[in-house]
Amino acid sequence: MKAGILGLGYWGPNLIRNFLSQSEVEKVYGCDLQDSRLNFIKSKFPSTILTKDYDEMLKNVDVVAIATPVATHFNFAKQALLMGKHIWVEKPFTATSQEAVELIELAEKRNLKIFVDHTFIYTGAVRKMKELADNGEIGDIKYFDSVRVNLGLFQHDVNVIWDLAPHDLSIMGYLLPNNKPIAVAANGIANFYEHENVAHLSVYFNNNCFAHFHVNWTSPVKIRRMIIGGDKKMIVFNDMENLEKIKVYDSGINISKREEIHEALVQYRIGDMHSPKVIQTEALSLGANEFITAINENRQPLTNAVDGLAVVKILEAAEESIKHRGKIVEI
Amino acid sequence: MKAGILGLGYWGPNLIRNFLSQSEVEKVYGCDLQDSRLNFIKSKFPSTILTKDYDEMLKNVDVVAIATPVATHFNFAKQALLMGKHIWVEKPFTATSQEAVELIELAEKRNLKIFVDHTFIYTGAVRKMKELADNGEIGDIKYFDSVRVNLGLFQHDVNVIWDLAPHDLSIMGYLLPNNKPIAVAANGIANFYEHENVAHLSVYFNNNCFAHFHVNWTSPVKIRRMIIGGDKKMIVFNDMENLEKIKVYDSGINISKREEIHEALVQYRIGDMHSPKVIQTEALSLGANEFITAINENRQPLTNAVDGLAVVKILEAAEESIKHRGKIVEI
Amino acid sequence: MKAGILGLGYWGPNLIRNFLSQSEVEKVYGCDLQDSRLNFIKSKFPSTILTKDYDEMLKNVDVVAIATPVATHFNFAKQALLMGKHIWVEKPFTATSQEAVELIELAEKRNLKIFVDHTFIYTGAVRKMKELADNGEIGDIKYFDSVRVNLGLFQHDVNVIWDLAPHDLSIMGYLLPNNKPIAVAANGIANFYEHENVAHLSVYFNNNCFAHFHVNWTSPVKIRRMIIGGDKKMIVFNDMENLEKIKVYDSGINISKREEIHEALVQYRIGDMHSPKVIQTEALSLGANEFITAINENRQPLTNAVDGLAVVKILEAAEESIKHRGKIVEI
Amino acid sequence: MKAGILGLGYWGPNLIRNFLSQSEVEKVYGCDLQDSRLNFIKSKFPSTILTKDYDEMLKNVDVVAIATPVATHFNFAKQALLMGKHIWVEKPFTATSQEAVELIELAEKRNLKIFVDHTFIYTGAVRKMKELADNGEIGDIKYFDSVRVNLGLFQHDVNVIWDLAPHDLSIMGYLLPNNKPIAVAANGIANFYEHENVAHLSVYFNNNCFAHFHVNWTSPVKIRRMIIGGDKKMIVFNDMENLEKIKVYDSGINISKREEIHEALVQYRIGDMHSPKVIQTEALSLGANEFITAINENRQPLTNAVDGLAVVKILEAAEESIKHRGKIVEI
Repeated sequence: MKAGILGLGYWGPNLIRNFLSQSEVEKVYGCDLQDSRLNFIKSKFPSTILTKDYDEMLKNVDVVAIATPVATHFNFAKQALLMGKHIWVEKPFTATSQEAVELIELAEKRNLKIFVDHTFIYTGAVRKMKELADNGEIGDIKYFDSVRVNLGLFQHDVNVIWDLAPHDLSIMGYLLPNNKPIAVAANGIANFYEHENVAHLSVYFNNNCFAHFHVNWTSPVKIRRMIIGGDKKMIVFNDMENLEKIKVYDSGINISKREEIHEALVQYRIGDMHSPKVIQTEALSLGANEFITAINENRQPLTNAVDGLAVVKILEAAEESIKHRGKIVEI
Repeated sequence: MKAGILGLGYWGPNLIRNFLSQSEVEKVYGCDLQDSRLNFIKSKFPSTILTKDYDEMLKNVDVVAIATPVATHFNFAKQALLMGKHIWVEKPFTATSQEAVELIELAEKRNLKIFVDHTFIYTGAVRKMKELADNGEIGDIKYFDSVRVNLGLFQHDVNVIWDLAPHDLSIMGYLLPNNKPIAVAANGIANFYEHENVAHLSVYFNNNCFAHFHVNWTSPVKIRRMIIGGDKKMIVFNDMENLEKIKVYDSGINISKREEIHEALVQYRIGDMHSPKVIQTEALSLGANEFITAINENRQPLTNAVDGLAVVKILEAAEESIKHRGKIVEI
Repeated sequence: MKAGILGLGYWGPNLIRNFLSQSEVEKVYGCDLQDSRLNFIKSKFPSTILTKDYDEMLKNVDVVAIATPVATHFNFAKQALLMGKHIWVEKPFTATSQEAVELIELAEKRNLKIFVDHTFIYTGAVRKMKELADNGEIGDIKYFDSVRVNLGLFQHDVNVIWDLAPHDLSIMGYLLPNNKPIAVAANGIANFYEHENVAHLSVYFNNNCFAHFHVNWTSPVKIRRMIIGGDKKMIVFNDMENLEKIKVYDSGINISKREEIHEALVQYRIGDMHSPKVIQTEALSLGANEFITAINENRQPLTNAVDGLAVVKILEAAEESIKHRGKIVEI
Repeated sequence: MKAGILGLGYWGPNLIRNFLSQSEVEKVYGCDLQDSRLNFIKSKFPSTILTKDYDEMLKNVDVVAIATPVATHFNFAKQALLMGKHIWVEKPFTATSQEAVELIELAEKRNLKIFVDHTFIYTGAVRKMKELADNGEIGDIKYFDSVRVNLGLFQHDVNVIWDLAPHDLSIMGYLLPNNKPIAVAANGIANFYEHENVAHLSVYFNNNCFAHFHVNWTSPVKIRRMIIGGDKKMIVFNDMENLEKIKVYDSGINISKREEIHEALVQYRIGDMHSPKVIQTEALSLGANEFITAINENRQPLTNAVDGLAVVKILEAAEESIKHRGKIVEI
């Protein structure tokens, strides 16, 4: 299989490296318009075949990974699908849900696979949380709270929600497949230019669950923490920890009857904490493997265009909401 | 001066202890309807004069501290003022802003002082932050982010915002006296009964600043952290730290022109971190002293009814907003 | 039962409070020479009967707790035993092992009980470690490493080993009842006066185990950590943590044959971490209860004079060793 | 300048990469006996010229870096010096101080430079501590305490002291150039084979200062912490921190007269904490640059053979001491 990588900026080199390491991949192509980037790849990965011409690269490859600004995903992806290539698209999948739908239909018609790079789904920590969620250990999830803040690179074309929230939204969708988001509210501020650098995103579900996402490009400290409140146990995922990334708390609050709701009668359960070992394999390498395997087995990859669309729908709604100071937007 | 404490439940004993330790206070009275509480105070603070009759206590004291459920604050406070007593009221000041206004007017007419117990204003950490904010060291505050979550006692009469947010709202008002809150949006969920146990409160200002408050009674981990993003420096206040509660980061983002907003040109400044020593004196004792001093000097105390009203206005707006999934509510 | 507390300085008030809270204790006496201390107890615990005369107090009580400088323990203890009183002695038990032996013999003759206040043995954390050690979960203990450092109060009569190490030595003896210390080496420095403020104590055993204790009165940070290296699992006890004090690591190194000792073949096992819930009851209260119960059941208390002697033997050897720059001293 | 790297195992590839990145270096050679290692370098650094023949490599290069087991350093180094090559030797410099002396004399005769790779000296954190030590900010250093423990790779030829302590011993020598070590005592245990896996090293100086080094290959947690107790300020260097590696505590103990040594009169000073920004440049790259610059300027490099000898002397003494349960060994 021959693979082409479009866009060799921040993320592209990681894609080159990981596709090179896939046994199924015999040749890797790279495409970008900037000489500096092409030269960088040349020096680090001499075996890569480089070009400035996307059409030409498309002719030579079986699959293409698109790592360009989100506004350009649709055209590059459509072009690749029209030429019969399976595609890998960086997150967020597309700039609008309509673009996503069009790509999904096009891929279905031609039986081509679309992989959306929700990388976190392939991390050991998230897979461990999925295991805990699916085996019923944490019970019903009552709330999902995510914080992703640091001194981060501003994007010139999108706000902090489009830049950071897709990671956490994809994790939410993965862990809560049965909870349907029904409405979104987003608040925040753009301190420096028209795009928000601080934002808070609330997601309402069709059941007794609630999710919140705090993203910030201008925090002096780096925080990457997720709290998942189950009615049996609760999980804290701290991605800044080297080893103990996942902590499972056998803690909660038991309330059987409304009468019991007052200080004296609330029953706390504070038990042991357990931090399961988490696999360290590089997520991107597992993702590339899943993409290739899905193609060979002619099935949808674990992180596919439907997941990508689900995330884009929330981002769209958040965009409308935040422009109206948190107006509720139905999905 | 003789002081009376009404309500000897969770917080009352702390008030008894701290008023007893004030040199200006010659006698301390306590009032509650529950025998168990009266007996507890008797054994721990034998010199306290105890009664079940509020009227009787009022007759004997010069000042009264009201530590009862918020719904009852207004009547007890009004009664005290009508009898010419200075009052201390626990947070939140009143159940409605209208009640607060009425008490303020009543106190003014009779030249009586109202102290609202926004205790955190008297902590060494908050006073240090005030110092940093006032001396211009952190510059213009761009955002104010507060998290106060743990496995907390449910209140039977109010939701988690009314219970926990007053602490942080009073700190915000203290540090940002010139930023006028103009609108509020609140989101959250009531997983267990009609009052929300998880909530997110956004506050919009009349300038380029934004504040957010995350409160949760059902978090497996206890987090008490505030981030104050100034355009010169940023402060992180971690109240779970024993010693290094305040950290000042000489970090930020410099953007002179809109053109500069793209990855290549954003200028980060990551400098030293400084953790100033913070005074450890018990806040409640300093508060009691301020109350007494303000009375003797016939001036408003540092945390007065106007501050209490400002907090209640936001709580009222938050209540309306959260019942309508984050509808923006002007203040 | 009537209890008398001798020495009302730093620790005495805690003894007064905890003996007062024992249902079996009908009356508590206090004895000290300083008026300031007597007045302090009078105001905080009005029901205490106070005196400056030890003999007089001894006449009135059934048991006496001795909380004076270690050099004075022997005489006060002997006097009490001669008057037929059961005794509680603060750690370290005595200034010399010979004193300890004499008190043990005297108590045996008169069937009196000696409780040595190795308080940590009654903490939830240490009891949990004992449970893990006894049920075989951690396997054979290969090493025991303890650090107890902070900016601490200098003792004018003893060095930092005598002041801080008894806590950790008593824990070691409790967790390793079958490992006999055979020799001791101690190194350190006295930067400020003749007694060492920084010290390192090594303990050799009669088997393949080793223990080390690091104590320091002049550390800018407070560290209270113990690592117990078992060949099945390892425990880290961090007493500075509020909740997760005990962490059990399912980690280790497996080496079957000497040939396998080189980088390529060492087999690491890094598994889950588990932090068991630890009981929060005040240790001193459980200690007081154990003392009283042991007397009533006419048995030796859990922390008795034999344990106290074992600790004093190591302290004596450490004293000799540190004065000779770590000379090995057999026990 | 042409550079050759001997030994392409664990550390060798880092040397290849960093010498390749030096502008002064036109060609890099690599030498090892194992094909797997040669192939690995070939694939990652195609421009490297590889060989199994050390003599041949020596003929082609101007400088050689020796990254082989310590027992072999001497012969390889001597051979290179005899052929007129400047040498870079990994830590520890040699297996005996006598070997070190011989190499030093040989290099002097031929005016060749010896660089000993005490990498930590080139880290931003250590350079910052050096700055603080030299500008007098921390005052006289009273003690130096180092902990370097984790689940580490066993060395088949040396114990944990020879493997881990050289890092910390070189830092000590760098920060305390005027404190002469006069004696050493080492304690520990070999739980698995003849070489110790847990060890404690005490260093006595010719003045009122003391140093201790705790090294352990079998700790479930990774700790890399150094405390430097100055009489003005104290430094804590936590190498596990990503950003705040260095914390300077304006804390200490003031004692003017011997009489003052008792609880009541010890004067604590607990002030602010300051965490200076630390440069992130890769230490090894700065080391390579220093090596080349020293050669060009015909001067001794910052980390030279004399420093290497000083470390080896302590290691030798520690080896003798630990085999005799901490016997003091003069240097």
